[in-house]
Amino acid sequence: MLSFEQVSELAVESATKVVLIVADGIGGLPNLSTGKTELETASTPNLDRLALTGMCGLHEPVSAGITPGSGPGHLALFGYDPLKHLIGRGVLEGLGIDFPLQPDDIAARGNFCTVDDSGFIVDRRAGRIATEKAANLCRLLSDLKIPGLEVIVRPVREHRFLLVLRGNGLSPKLEDTDPERTGVAPLAVKATSLDANTTARRVQVFVDEARRILRDQRPANMILLRGFAKLPNIPKFPAVYKMRAAAVVTYPMYKGLARVLGMNVYEGTSDSSGSVKVLADVWDDHDYFFVHFKKTDAYGEDGDFSRKVAAIEELDGAVAGIEALKPDVLAVTGDHSTPAVLKGHSWHSVPFLIHSKWCRPSGVEHFNESACVRGNLGIFPGLAVMPLLMAHALKLTKYGA
Amino acid sequence: MLSFEQVSELAVESATKVVLIVADGIGGLPNLSTGKTELETASTPNLDRLALTGMCGLHEPVSAGITPGSGPGHLALFGYDPLKHLIGRGVLEGLGIDFPLQPDDIAARGNFCTVDDSGFIVDRRAGRIATEKAANLCRLLSDLKIPGLEVIVRPVREHRFLLVLRGNGLSPKLEDTDPERTGVAPLAVKATSLDANTTARRVQVFVDEARRILRDQRPANMILLRGFAKLPNIPKFPAVYKMRAAAVVTYPMYKGLARVLGMNVYEGTSDSSGSVKVLADVWDDHDYFFVHFKKTDAYGEDGDFSRKVAAIEELDGAVAGIEALKPDVLAVTGDHSTPAVLKGHSWHSVPFLIHSKWCRPSGVEHFNESACVRGNLGIFPGLAVMPLLMAHALKLTKYGA
Repeated sequence: MLSFEQVSELAVESATKVVLIVADGIGGLPNLSTGKTELETASTPNLDRLALTGMCGLHEPVSAGITPGSGPGHLALFGYDPLKHLIGRGVLEGLGIDFPLQPDDIAARGNFCTVDDSGFIVDRRAGRIATEKAANLCRLLSDLKIPGLEVIVRPVREHRFLLVLRGNGLSPKLEDTDPERTGVAPLAVKATSLDANTTARRVQVFVDEARRILRDQRPANMILLRGFAKLPNIPKFPAVYKMRAAAVVTYPMYKGLARVLGMNVYEGTSDSSGSVKVLADVWDDHDYFFVHFKKTDAYGEDGDFSRKVAAIEELDGAVAGIEALKPDVLAVTGDHSTPAVLKGHSWHSVPFLIHSKWCRPSGVEHFNESACVRGNLGIFPGLAVMPLLMAHALKLTKYGA
Repeated sequence: MLSFEQVSELAVESATKVVLIVADGIGGLPNLSTGKTELETASTPNLDRLALTGMCGLHEPVSAGITPGSGPGHLALFGYDPLKHLIGRGVLEGLGIDFPLQPDDIAARGNFCTVDDSGFIVDRRAGRIATEKAANLCRLLSDLKIPGLEVIVRPVREHRFLLVLRGNGLSPKLEDTDPERTGVAPLAVKATSLDANTTARRVQVFVDEARRILRDQRPANMILLRGFAKLPNIPKFPAVYKMRAAAVVTYPMYKGLARVLGMNVYEGTSDSSGSVKVLADVWDDHDYFFVHFKKTDAYGEDGDFSRKVAAIEELDGAVAGIEALKPDVLAVTGDHSTPAVLKGHSWHSVPFLIHSKWCRPSGVEHFNESACVRGNLGIFPGLAVMPLLMAHALKLTKYGA
């Protein structure tokens, strides 16, 4: 696989337009009663037509057997090796709400949670308290004075908040305090590297103080922290690929990811047709469009097979609207699989289709797992998606004489 | 993938003979009116029979989405990682006409071209002037005296020539002066690295002098330079693979490539049957035979679908002649795809077949893109071709105990 620098050397500007639709977690597994996956169950006439006239395959976002988080899954689709570029959840959360992170800040994603009198977790999401309620609690926490630390706590959505710690010599090499299960106490703040020991002690002071302040705020009477991270130094997408890039997204984390890569971020809508309108509005000013649909993943995580099927059918309708914009290259895939039967992300390869004037059709009549595996792109690394998009858009010159 | 050193450690001499037929640019795309590619359109009874009894797949010469030049495409087929070994066009051109390049020489491929009175390029190939005419102009340019530079200019074919500059401290890190389009002036000689600034200035003096000398030679009244390069330090094919290697080729660049790898080069003929005779003549003295057919690429570049189909059918006839020599391993593929509809090299994977006593047949009834994708070699990196050839020839011992 070529490096950024090598792809960048081959990249040329051209008038062609590329749309990548990422239906989060679209890949699935067979429903126990029907033997069919979510995609195999859904009626998707538009995706099927694109599959038949385009090229199909399955991609592996990180590598065989590896279940990607949303960050690595997306990074791979944007051509950034997810094994080299790991952007912490905290940073993504911060960028997602437009917080101006500074290079030495450490950021974490926080949850308000409920603990019982013994301090054991009863609900990791504090009954999904309202965002306004969480905003009040964030103000209380922001008032905390920890020696040598500036504490910034911002509400994100429902029980989720952003924690930013500012100070000298802070290290993000800290383990999560969220044990990701109930019936146990939140974990202590632990360093994963010797040089983070001092930071760990200072963050523990913050956590202990937070618990004291929230004591009477049940259900939100404690916090859990995940994904401590610093702003990464990462090459910018428009510079690498010589494309003006637009991201049409709704969820904060994906906004954050798009921003850290230098894409222009536009607010999508949770119903896909609204996102198509946004896309049309910014069409003339960009060459590359990342369109994110979250519902497929959300229903997969909920284990709600039939709602995931309905989300796929909604996506199929939106695809027709995007086709009407006449992109030169239209690709549809996911950042990973989220099978409803697994109720979470999985390691399974992800259906992929690309449609342009320069396709060798596969004779694949449906866009789903069992059909794409017979497609003529085979099973390929997620990192190959960007070169494929660029090639079909005639935006890559020849390598070598 | 194993390195050279690792493959070399496993390589053993044996009495088996391996033929690799490279039909340049053989892969294609569907014709807009028939929906069939060049290979799918051609009648190829011999290739189809080999596909049915051998093993099939598609290879990616560099990696997904990357359009290879002929150099990288061939290097991959010979087992040299094209991302590590990039041989400049100038060197290939020099080796192709048997010019004894010295380690410190820099070489470039030159074109005579036509410029108008304002110095703008009218024809990048000077109306493809006759080779003899070009030879006279090369003599004029060779007489140029540039301080500190020995200038050698040799005709190649038609408007193409080889420029070799000999002197102390020359660097090949120079950009092409060929803008690859008409209506603009040739580009100035520019260094791509600080240490090449002095060389750039000296080569510019040569270009300016050349323009003065050619002033009245319209249509060949200017030159364009591409692919500045030095002789690379590259492991020799016969030593790595322990095979005596013969290359049967017609075009200078491929001769150059074969020579730099240490193959013995024999002049093929443009009609394939002549090349088969040459192959027979040198059969006993070699273990590995690289047979190059250029026409498939040439007609692809011309956008001449039906002539490319005819070239494939001619190749199919030649295959029968090569089979009559009874090679132990016979493989057929291309160095890249050159779809007639794209009129140029492309990034699409390339049909591959291998035939030996040790095959698992795929039930693939045709040698073409849509059939090979169902073959049992799948889609694989071009770098895997050499280990496959060696394995089928029983020339690789077991790796590890």
